[in-house]
Amino acid sequence: MTHAADTAAAPHHSGPQGETVVYTYLGPEGTFTEAALLRIPGASDAVRIPAPSVNSALEMVRSGQANAAVVPIENSVEGGVSATLDALSAGTSLRILHEILVPITFVLAVRPGIGLADIRTVSTHTHAWAQCREWAAANIPSAEYLPASSTAAAAVELARQEPAFDAAICAPLVAERLGLEVLREDIGDVRDAVTRFVMISLPGLLPEPTGADKTTLVIPLPEDHPGALMDILEQFSTRGVNLSRIESRPTGMFLGDYFFSIDADGHVADARMADALKGLHRISPGLRFLGSYPRADRREPEVSRHTSDEAFRDADIWLQSLLNGY
Amino acid sequence: MTHAADTAAAPHHSGPQGETVVYTYLGPEGTFTEAALLRIPGASDAVRIPAPSVNSALEMVRSGQANAAVVPIENSVEGGVSATLDALSAGTSLRILHEILVPITFVLAVRPGIGLADIRTVSTHTHAWAQCREWAAANIPSAEYLPASSTAAAAVELARQEPAFDAAICAPLVAERLGLEVLREDIGDVRDAVTRFVMISLPGLLPEPTGADKTTLVIPLPEDHPGALMDILEQFSTRGVNLSRIESRPTGMFLGDYFFSIDADGHVADARMADALKGLHRISPGLRFLGSYPRADRREPEVSRHTSDEAFRDADIWLQSLLNGY
Amino acid sequence: MTHAADTAAAPHHSGPQGETVVYTYLGPEGTFTEAALLRIPGASDAVRIPAPSVNSALEMVRSGQANAAVVPIENSVEGGVSATLDALSAGTSLRILHEILVPITFVLAVRPGIGLADIRTVSTHTHAWAQCREWAAANIPSAEYLPASSTAAAAVELARQEPAFDAAICAPLVAERLGLEVLREDIGDVRDAVTRFVMISLPGLLPEPTGADKTTLVIPLPEDHPGALMDILEQFSTRGVNLSRIESRPTGMFLGDYFFSIDADGHVADARMADALKGLHRISPGLRFLGSYPRADRREPEVSRHTSDEAFRDADIWLQSLLNGY
Amino acid sequence: MTHAADTAAAPHHSGPQGETVVYTYLGPEGTFTEAALLRIPGASDAVRIPAPSVNSALEMVRSGQANAAVVPIENSVEGGVSATLDALSAGTSLRILHEILVPITFVLAVRPGIGLADIRTVSTHTHAWAQCREWAAANIPSAEYLPASSTAAAAVELARQEPAFDAAICAPLVAERLGLEVLREDIGDVRDAVTRFVMISLPGLLPEPTGADKTTLVIPLPEDHPGALMDILEQFSTRGVNLSRIESRPTGMFLGDYFFSIDADGHVADARMADALKGLHRISPGLRFLGSYPRADRREPEVSRHTSDEAFRDADIWLQSLLNGY
Repeated sequence: MTHAADTAAAPHHSGPQGETVVYTYLGPEGTFTEAALLRIPGASDAVRIPAPSVNSALEMVRSGQANAAVVPIENSVEGGVSATLDALSAGTSLRILHEILVPITFVLAVRPGIGLADIRTVSTHTHAWAQCREWAAANIPSAEYLPASSTAAAAVELARQEPAFDAAICAPLVAERLGLEVLREDIGDVRDAVTRFVMISLPGLLPEPTGADKTTLVIPLPEDHPGALMDILEQFSTRGVNLSRIESRPTGMFLGDYFFSIDADGHVADARMADALKGLHRISPGLRFLGSYPRADRREPEVSRHTSDEAFRDADIWLQSLLNGY
Repeated sequence: MTHAADTAAAPHHSGPQGETVVYTYLGPEGTFTEAALLRIPGASDAVRIPAPSVNSALEMVRSGQANAAVVPIENSVEGGVSATLDALSAGTSLRILHEILVPITFVLAVRPGIGLADIRTVSTHTHAWAQCREWAAANIPSAEYLPASSTAAAAVELARQEPAFDAAICAPLVAERLGLEVLREDIGDVRDAVTRFVMISLPGLLPEPTGADKTTLVIPLPEDHPGALMDILEQFSTRGVNLSRIESRPTGMFLGDYFFSIDADGHVADARMADALKGLHRISPGLRFLGSYPRADRREPEVSRHTSDEAFRDADIWLQSLLNGY
Repeated sequence: MTHAADTAAAPHHSGPQGETVVYTYLGPEGTFTEAALLRIPGASDAVRIPAPSVNSALEMVRSGQANAAVVPIENSVEGGVSATLDALSAGTSLRILHEILVPITFVLAVRPGIGLADIRTVSTHTHAWAQCREWAAANIPSAEYLPASSTAAAAVELARQEPAFDAAICAPLVAERLGLEVLREDIGDVRDAVTRFVMISLPGLLPEPTGADKTTLVIPLPEDHPGALMDILEQFSTRGVNLSRIESRPTGMFLGDYFFSIDADGHVADARMADALKGLHRISPGLRFLGSYPRADRREPEVSRHTSDEAFRDADIWLQSLLNGY
Repeated sequence: MTHAADTAAAPHHSGPQGETVVYTYLGPEGTFTEAALLRIPGASDAVRIPAPSVNSALEMVRSGQANAAVVPIENSVEGGVSATLDALSAGTSLRILHEILVPITFVLAVRPGIGLADIRTVSTHTHAWAQCREWAAANIPSAEYLPASSTAAAAVELARQEPAFDAAICAPLVAERLGLEVLREDIGDVRDAVTRFVMISLPGLLPEPTGADKTTLVIPLPEDHPGALMDILEQFSTRGVNLSRIESRPTGMFLGDYFFSIDADGHVADARMADALKGLHRISPGLRFLGSYPRADRREPEVSRHTSDEAFRDADIWLQSLLNGY
């Protein structure tokens, strides 16, 4: 087994002779998704193309127009998470190379000269509004809310000649770029909110195992439910593999037909993970492997003696000796 | 234990002296949700108020403005399913009294005199468009798609003086009401598509067990994931209770914090279901019971000898005799 | 539920007016079993009748000739453990009231005037011989071994006029009673060896729960094996009940037909144990309850919040409120 | 992997040039164990040496004095089963090559001229007596029972000049050999009683898989009990491997220290069994493999699609492709 070189940060389709790397991401510009992309080393020098939807971002990767795409995968304020899970579960198989955690902090942006008391209308994405509602009720109780298609779209509209509202709730990044005045910072109701993004590329060499990795899978639920889900979970638990995320998604139009999107602690190069994946493949051969990649938080899992690489190797040697007649 | 009388179809807050029953539902008028409501006996004579969102429909029930609400809970073409799951998981506890399955069939509606070849623009809800895409590619390949906030909203716009498009994809019900011409019927790409709706009321007497019932629960995942989910599933499997639906939903802003929305076969008046619920309450006391109600498909579960009401009663008697010194 | 009074040490069939209590035990006199009986308060003043077999001891209890019997149940040096497990699994149901742990220490007894170098033949029970073999090989290497039916029988023979051998390996108790000379003490090869005995009576009031109790069960394995055994074990594990002993025994002449003899931590008056027993009764109604009684080592189990009596009571209250329409 | 040739019936240490094969078995001559040995093709022409105990039979194999030993392993009327399980669990590892099922039928043997009414004393092994008690109570109610060390020993004594009793209960084989008169045949109380014997040899080439095989294991229970036993059973159940026998045995002098003796359906050359064995080795590395060999009853297990050799091979190929970057 071979792994991508240490420069795994760059998607492996970028050439060594300095060809330009092209990234796409769920746009528009200035959202938290672009902020996530900018955390990737070298991304600020690369071509960055905002895509109108998660699907179109992934299509750019599949068609070779972009080397990689950054999209939200967990708890986004701009939506898109279900779209990401669904898009990864169908079509050409893709691979997650990185995960990026971005703290979610909102600012109240206004046109110069506007104070809190002057705000009669405020716009932002519905999810962002939901997350600032308490602050708004306390500080701009009489302001009317107007929905926008993204936090950045609200900011862009506000920066125009004759905006349709007085204030926008958006990411610090876009307010700064557009030269809007930031009247209040960090107005979200929940402290320490964070959204998780992933960088996605075509299949290729896997990122090297680091000891603190994550593996992402899409597992169709075979036939009958409760037993089937327990069978799936058991493949992990009997190998001491912890799950950090499990989400169900309907597969389509038929009631009660699901797949599960799962993040498990460890790398497919770890014996216990490889064994769990083989077990999963046997009971649900339509299983999809979406990559093994370093955890953003660098937290290493506890591995028991029974599920260490050494225990797996010893068991293989022992079994081979039996088959050889010893 | 007492149950609602045989007229359980009517929510139990309607008075016997012929007071008017008020229903609300996820609007606007003419969507599949209203079609679901109209399948409830007596609904056509009741007051029916469309609500702008699932949340506002449920608030009308909580505040007493409506006796019951009908909302989609599984695979809706108009969206609203996540909203329903989330709305039921918080706030004052509510109860599901009925489930209603509605076949999803789309029609292509036009203004009189318009033929297929004349259609340059078509509007509908995004989900509905996704479900008719193959038909559209084959039959109106050059038509541009314009999104609408619901299938009914597209139909209503089309019925106006100067509509912004040439055709709408909508439910048969609304096309008929608005006097639109139905150019093609049943244009959905998937045969036998169905959406599941529920009628929701305030807590009260439970519908009588019928032998073919469903129980709906909201179960917060306690602490650590994989083991915790297995513990929850085990409460059902050890009592021979089958699950017909399981969906995860994030609880809020923190990554990896979930609740599970579950439908289980059986009624809380069945001993095995009561025992499973008590087991669940012990491991996840924040559990929410959303009702036991008849299955729309009337399918009765197979109950093994070990988990019959009789087996539970015999075990209770046996244990009592031990405690009494026999 | 009522419990036996504090004087639970005495079997509850002994009258309060000083009627004589009659105990039987696996004989002969002077074995470790009699030593176990003598650890019961008041036993030294009671009538103590040695029985030739475990079965005959239990028959004396069943027929009312004795108030209680003491027999070995785990790792006896005199045998009898399988006999006890089998005898308790059939016939009139009995109850264990106490467990007694007896340290197993062997002495080398001789007739006065005999030294180590003089010993050419030594007798004891086969199991005892197995446990002193290393000592014998080192200290009386040339002595020939002659089997006896019990350690006490060897001692009794040695005390006769013309014994058939020069030395006996036996319990300290019997050597002292017979006036034999103890040439060496504590000659067993294993330090801290212990045998577990139980006092058995007819069903009646259960010993009071002490917080450090044990419950003994006989569970026939229903039908098919591996799944069935897992189902049984799951009844304990899902209620957080730990097992301290599990042994399989064939039920009779047919291959592959078993029952399991199990000791579980806790008292049937504990909610989690009562619930586990009811679950076991449902899957294996031929289950036999052999009593809840104080642990000899007084070690209290750790009880998680989820399986405490309080968690069970709260769950009962919650379920009742649902059934009442709240 | 290589297997023993088709002549697996003969232990593989017998030379091809007609060297004499030496078998040992749990004696004495004429018991059901010798009858089991005689069912092995070629055994009637081989040297057959009765051994005084299971341990000494196995020692003859370990030391090379015998090519193979036949001993009872399940439900013997002559005892020896616990001894076999314990002897196989310690010392040099051995391999089971065959299992042999022998119907247990007892005859009542007498000296010529003796009728039922003349029998005042009858002798046999205790276990055999237990199995003919109902017949004896009905047919020779006044006969006194005298224990013998085996059914054959009773027959041999009866054939002497002045036997100590009037009749013996024994196997048909020994009565015929000794020229005793068979007064009644098939006097066992249980119809279809059977004892299972195994032929044991030194490790070597494994018997070829036949599609209807058995694998025998000795598994020490690691540390803590209930969870540990469930972990062990799960290794089989998750691979769809059925167990046909499970027995606990104490490991020695310490209370609560066990190993499990297990027969599982399948051959170590089957992928699912190999995988289960590796899983067991990881959690209990002291595991002992005692052989894979044809089932006497030729019954083939049902293998689900998920646990077929093909499913294992497909999963291996899939995983390898992931590691290679596809």
